Amino acid sequence: MSTKKRVAIIGASGYAGAEIVRLISGHPQVTLTYLTSRQYAGQSYDTVFPALTGCVDHYCETFSPEDAIHKADIFFLALPHKASMGVAAPLLEAGKKVIDLSADFRFKNRSVYENHYQLHEAPQWLKKAVYGLCEINHQAISNADLIGNPGCYPTSILLPLMPLLKNKLINTTGIIADSKSGVSGAGRSPSLGTLFCEVNEGFKAYKVAEHRHAPEMNENLTLAAGENVQILFVPHLVPMSRGIVSTIYVRCKTSDNHIRDCLHAAYDNCHFIRILPDGHFPNAAHVRGTNYCDIGTKYSSEQGILVIISTIDNLIKGAAGQAVQNMNIMMNFAETDGINAMPYPV
Amino acid sequence: MSTKKRVAIIGASGYAGAEIVRLISGHPQVTLTYLTSRQYAGQSYDTVFPALTGCVDHYCETFSPEDAIHKADIFFLALPHKASMGVAAPLLEAGKKVIDLSADFRFKNRSVYENHYQLHEAPQWLKKAVYGLCEINHQAISNADLIGNPGCYPTSILLPLMPLLKNKLINTTGIIADSKSGVSGAGRSPSLGTLFCEVNEGFKAYKVAEHRHAPEMNENLTLAAGENVQILFVPHLVPMSRGIVSTIYVRCKTSDNHIRDCLHAAYDNCHFIRILPDGHFPNAAHVRGTNYCDIGTKYSSEQGILVIISTIDNLIKGAAGQAVQNMNIMMNFAETDGINAMPYPV
Amino acid sequence: MSTKKRVAIIGASGYAGAEIVRLISGHPQVTLTYLTSRQYAGQSYDTVFPALTGCVDHYCETFSPEDAIHKADIFFLALPHKASMGVAAPLLEAGKKVIDLSADFRFKNRSVYENHYQLHEAPQWLKKAVYGLCEINHQAISNADLIGNPGCYPTSILLPLMPLLKNKLINTTGIIADSKSGVSGAGRSPSLGTLFCEVNEGFKAYKVAEHRHAPEMNENLTLAAGENVQILFVPHLVPMSRGIVSTIYVRCKTSDNHIRDCLHAAYDNCHFIRILPDGHFPNAAHVRGTNYCDIGTKYSSEQGILVIISTIDNLIKGAAGQAVQNMNIMMNFAETDGINAMPYPV
Amino acid sequence: MSTKKRVAIIGASGYAGAEIVRLISGHPQVTLTYLTSRQYAGQSYDTVFPALTGCVDHYCETFSPEDAIHKADIFFLALPHKASMGVAAPLLEAGKKVIDLSADFRFKNRSVYENHYQLHEAPQWLKKAVYGLCEINHQAISNADLIGNPGCYPTSILLPLMPLLKNKLINTTGIIADSKSGVSGAGRSPSLGTLFCEVNEGFKAYKVAEHRHAPEMNENLTLAAGENVQILFVPHLVPMSRGIVSTIYVRCKTSDNHIRDCLHAAYDNCHFIRILPDGHFPNAAHVRGTNYCDIGTKYSSEQGILVIISTIDNLIKGAAGQAVQNMNIMMNFAETDGINAMPYPV
Repeated sequence: MSTKKRVAIIGASGYAGAEIVRLISGHPQVTLTYLTSRQYAGQSYDTVFPALTGCVDHYCETFSPEDAIHKADIFFLALPHKASMGVAAPLLEAGKKVIDLSADFRFKNRSVYENHYQLHEAPQWLKKAVYGLCEINHQAISNADLIGNPGCYPTSILLPLMPLLKNKLINTTGIIADSKSGVSGAGRSPSLGTLFCEVNEGFKAYKVAEHRHAPEMNENLTLAAGENVQILFVPHLVPMSRGIVSTIYVRCKTSDNHIRDCLHAAYDNCHFIRILPDGHFPNAAHVRGTNYCDIGTKYSSEQGILVIISTIDNLIKGAAGQAVQNMNIMMNFAETDGINAMPYPV
Repeated sequence: MSTKKRVAIIGASGYAGAEIVRLISGHPQVTLTYLTSRQYAGQSYDTVFPALTGCVDHYCETFSPEDAIHKADIFFLALPHKASMGVAAPLLEAGKKVIDLSADFRFKNRSVYENHYQLHEAPQWLKKAVYGLCEINHQAISNADLIGNPGCYPTSILLPLMPLLKNKLINTTGIIADSKSGVSGAGRSPSLGTLFCEVNEGFKAYKVAEHRHAPEMNENLTLAAGENVQILFVPHLVPMSRGIVSTIYVRCKTSDNHIRDCLHAAYDNCHFIRILPDGHFPNAAHVRGTNYCDIGTKYSSEQGILVIISTIDNLIKGAAGQAVQNMNIMMNFAETDGINAMPYPV
Repeated sequence: MSTKKRVAIIGASGYAGAEIVRLISGHPQVTLTYLTSRQYAGQSYDTVFPALTGCVDHYCETFSPEDAIHKADIFFLALPHKASMGVAAPLLEAGKKVIDLSADFRFKNRSVYENHYQLHEAPQWLKKAVYGLCEINHQAISNADLIGNPGCYPTSILLPLMPLLKNKLINTTGIIADSKSGVSGAGRSPSLGTLFCEVNEGFKAYKVAEHRHAPEMNENLTLAAGENVQILFVPHLVPMSRGIVSTIYVRCKTSDNHIRDCLHAAYDNCHFIRILPDGHFPNAAHVRGTNYCDIGTKYSSEQGILVIISTIDNLIKGAAGQAVQNMNIMMNFAETDGINAMPYPV
Repeated sequence: MSTKKRVAIIGASGYAGAEIVRLISGHPQVTLTYLTSRQYAGQSYDTVFPALTGCVDHYCETFSPEDAIHKADIFFLALPHKASMGVAAPLLEAGKKVIDLSADFRFKNRSVYENHYQLHEAPQWLKKAVYGLCEINHQAISNADLIGNPGCYPTSILLPLMPLLKNKLINTTGIIADSKSGVSGAGRSPSLGTLFCEVNEGFKAYKVAEHRHAPEMNENLTLAAGENVQILFVPHLVPMSRGIVSTIYVRCKTSDNHIRDCLHAAYDNCHFIRILPDGHFPNAAHVRGTNYCDIGTKYSSEQGILVIISTIDNLIKGAAGQAVQNMNIMMNFAETDGINAMPYPV
């Protein structure tokens, strides 16, 4: 009887998928109707995530395009990179809305994607996809059928940098992003490197200057700057479950007040972006479990380097939350519907 | 113009107080109008809890009974034990509803309170107070003006035990509760024992068989059993921020199925209590940030001992969440209003 | 040229194996000559444990009995349960000393082993094995060729209980051990349950009243008591890497002073056991990285229940450290050789 | 009867002081004879650090210069900045060896010290002090009476950078150090910012581009480079107890092989510095509890930026361990005496 839009989540057994399940289950405008997992097909969802006992009633199904098309209007794909392309195409052809959390539809430049991932199998859709960085591409998202939902690291880095590049306030060369992520970014598949004892009481860099998120950033930074930008990106692993902090170093000759003015102008109407006052810097704990992106800045005149620090929850603003925000924009719901949780004080 | 009931939070700068602030800020039926903190008087609340920037607009005020009475209808007192009594009395006399999170109004037996705390300064109100264990005292709470909100440990232990004692399914002697709590239970005042480096990678018992929560439990267990019950209570500190797990050992001669039947009968209509299926045991992570209490059981026939394991979030069901639930019941709101957050999958 | 005894470690790529490698590498009386790992055969040991770069020079070899017999005098087997039996027998037949960290040689009663594990393949050696609980079985260990090194949980529980049972100070029925362990006890093989994000900010019981360590405890407790003892054992998982705390509940009618007197009499000459003064309770952090077992007690006269709390580092006193201590006793080295590290203050 | 040198530790109740106590207690060449703490004067040391029960027998005394001069030959000062100066002078005048862990004797340029701290009270001794960066200033340390023991952050940053600057392999401008530290660096005094719940599951920068360790680095980098160097230094707080990782960005036009060659040439004879092979990066966990400094590098030709990553244990190589290493060099002991602990594998 409900006229609520029906939502499907394809690949619901990873951390990002589970966050979409949780957020959609509490969303006032939509109803969850289809939920798939190859690994857990046939099992009730609360055996996969016992925390959600009594909150989510669904069983994990095996994905079939026919079922999918009958059962839902809006599709979130939380599949591994390279697996999404094939799933998305028939849904799109059937007129469905698709928000894809993999890298498969993030790139305008197909060859960049193919250099870093594999041959693209749905290039006609790639062309039509919109990069779902909500606060930057709001207009295009509102008209889109297919969203390439941004990566977690790129979200934390592009949000502060794109307005500054667009407004020519910072140099386009020598940009460095020193990012730190909680462990959930590595997913839920068991691996030595994400065991508790291997992570706890440790801290390390990984994929130094060779992470696949760099090309995703470069494409968008270049777009904003109007000239080629090649960022140096170094991710690190923090012994915490959730959260990304990116400390970004850029060259410029302006004060942090000017920088913050620009960010305020860009984002003061954006509910989910908080520009911190002078002398304040973000803390991953302060956005945990929320769709916020907090940004602080400091200009060091001695070196002529501006330090920008941003933080997001990698699973929310960096994945599931931004995906729901994209849906809200596409469907003309209130932008905060289902994702307006406040941070916990501790 | 709003006809929403006005809420005050007295003592808003501790962890429990901050959780009430957060929950009330998102509550659909009430509006936060008065917020006090002696330590931070005059400061904006988001300087005390920067996570809540943009979510809570209030300034911390110094408590004054006159202001309080004019500004709000419902009062949450998140003050230290012994400080609440004096604050509560004038509010009650002015016809306000008061939910007190300290121990000051938890005891029916004044002398027990006075033995473990100090001389009671408002004994006339103590008599009228209702012990706010929501699922057990629902009826009395709905008619109360003053609630003694239960302690965190007692909540985790009384919820599973009281129906079993009432139904004479377990022995009244030799009950042992081995409880484990996250660090937020110790509050936000700086102390050596709660420094990160003193807690991290450690685990210890404290106040072994002499914690002040034991008399609070004994009074209620005795009431349920209809005979004297003296629990042996041993709390431990877990290197995590939130959560309590209580492992309870009782003697009985019945199976865990009978035990679970009794718990189901008592709680199947209670949204916030989840009785886990046979062979499943609760995890503090699964109730983190929520008002749930999860309960699992196992009977060991070899020793004739029943193991009951329960978990809550000490700051939510063990403090702020149950306080809001009490308000919901007192005010005839939907019981889940403002406290229906789902657990995070990770 | 060295006349140092040669040590082999079979199964060196798990956490316990690696701790033996570390301890043996710093041991003044022996030299590491042979180190095997099926999974990492052919790789240098510091690619498996990069922390040990520059500290351990060896390569992982594939175990062969012939090589083993030529290359070493003393063997530590850090293999999975059931795999050790077959490896141990030819070494013992060649006159080698064997310290086995699996359950394969821990049981005097073969049928108990076979009920909980599998058919025993070397029952003739099982008979000759000595249960390597160093402080209890010191004399037998000094004459042994084959040691069944105790489990981590049993070590933490047997050390305090055995002297009390032997001296008839506590009841033999209704003994409860509520144990809490760090995550390293679950080993280094990737699994969902030991991922950082699944453990962090959580706390849970597992294998409630059905852990395989219970029969190991029962056999030894029964031996000490001279009558049948069946312990109720409930293990829990703590979000920390290392350490076990066991909170043990026993019935008795004596004070904690008498209890501590008995423990002092039993252990005052034992370097690695620290009986804490009245009112002090152990903390897993205080034995981290060491071979100590700390014990505190409290008698609650109201319930007639004695609370005993003990702590060990599960990988040291609960595995590798006790294994080296066994070697020291067998070889007549100083008992603290190689395992006298002091705890870190933080 | 012993002819061992006698060691005093002044200010033994902080984390660094306690680590010196631990290391000296296990040092083969010296004996601990005097231990002071204003806060805990008169108390046995194991009441302050219960972990060390049975390991350290001393009582905390109140510092008096007369006692000090009679009781010890070598002095470690683990006092707050500004408190050390006055304590050091009379000891030095009495011919004692002094290793000071505060900033008071780290600066050659007195005015830099005075700008960032306060008026120097012992400038005559400041002139004679040697900056105790062991691997760099080995020769001068061996002849010194007074050591200014380096700060933790500077140690992690100067060790990799000084040889590269000396050999003109990197630019002197635009050097950025993005450092991450465990919580013990903030000391043992209770404060809101280092409470478990304030740190856990969070990550933040602090003192961005204004930390007092920057001038200490600049003085030494300038010395190595032979021209002025001003580093941009941004420290962050990691939810772990121990460890520093510094990710350093410098401009250059050479490959990481050349860089590593230079580092190998500088450090291959240094026991405590491990230059990691190509493609490997350090992890704080791999040096935890040890005096090692691990260094990895990666050159990104696209940006012409070299990434250098180093890690130390902030309390060992960054404080107590380097202090003992300095003593070893001053006293002509073996350089690894007392500080040759291997890292734990987990």
